[in-house]
Amino acid sequence: MSKQECVVLGQDGADGCCPGLLTAPLDEDRAETLAKVFKALGDPVRLRLLSMIASRAGGEVCVCDLTPAFDLSQPTISHHLKLLKQAGLIDSERRGTWVYYRLLPETTDQLAAILTRPAGAPATEPAGAAS
Amino acid sequence: MSKQECVVLGQDGADGCCPGLLTAPLDEDRAETLAKVFKALGDPVRLRLLSMIASRAGGEVCVCDLTPAFDLSQPTISHHLKLLKQAGLIDSERRGTWVYYRLLPETTDQLAAILTRPAGAPATEPAGAAS
Repeated sequence: MSKQECVVLGQDGADGCCPGLLTAPLDEDRAETLAKVFKALGDPVRLRLLSMIASRAGGEVCVCDLTPAFDLSQPTISHHLKLLKQAGLIDSERRGTWVYYRLLPETTDQLAAILTRPAGAPATEPAGAAS
Repeated sequence: MSKQECVVLGQDGADGCCPGLLTAPLDEDRAETLAKVFKALGDPVRLRLLSMIASRAGGEVCVCDLTPAFDLSQPTISHHLKLLKQAGLIDSERRGTWVYYRLLPETTDQLAAILTRPAGAPATEPAGAAS
C-alpha cells in the first residue's frame, strides 16, 4: 500500500503505513476517522450503490442508471451517494445533465488492509488464557 | 476462505464463496446483512474496543481491562460490546465476576475479502467511458 493511500484515511502513522485495526489499539483520532467510513458502509442502500458502481464495466455509472434499481426517489439516492463521496469511497463528475460516479479503490483497499490479520500473527488464540 | 466463514455473514452464494462487494451488485438480503456488520464498526468507541480486543496478546480481554481506557460507564461499554457481539465480530465468555471478550477473526477476514479487488480485474478504469 502506498503512502498516498494512507493519507486518504489520515493514517500515515509513524510506525509504518496504515497500521491495522487488529494489530494495535487505535487512538481516538484514527478511530473517529475510520468510524466515519464504516458508518457510510453501514447502510444497505449505500452498500448496494457502492457495489453497483464498483462492479460496473468501464468503471463509472451515471446516476440515471442507479436510481431505477431502487424504490427510492432520486434525491434520496443522491443523498446516499453524497455520504459515500464524503467518506472517500467514491468520486463524481458532472457531465451535461447527469452526474457520473466511480469507485475510489484506494479507500476500499485501505479498509481491506486494516481488517487483514498480520501474516504469521493470528489475532486470537484463546488457548491458554481460557483454561 | 472456508465455507464456514461464509455462513457467518450468510453469504454462501451459489456463484462461489463470499463474492466481493466490488465484483457484482449486492442483492438486498446480503446488503442488509453486511450493513449490520459495517454499522457495528461505524462508531469510534466500538472500533477502539475491537482493536483493543483483537490486538491483545493471549487473544482475550477482561471487560475490567477495557473500561478504564474510556471516559464512559461500564454499562455503556457493555452496550457497545453487545453490538460488536451481535454483529459477529467478537464473542464473550463469563468466568466468575467478569466477562472476557475475544475477536471472531472469521468475520473480519470475510470483511477484508469482500473489500478486496479481484486480482487482475481493477474495479475502476474511468478511461473510455469518460470520453
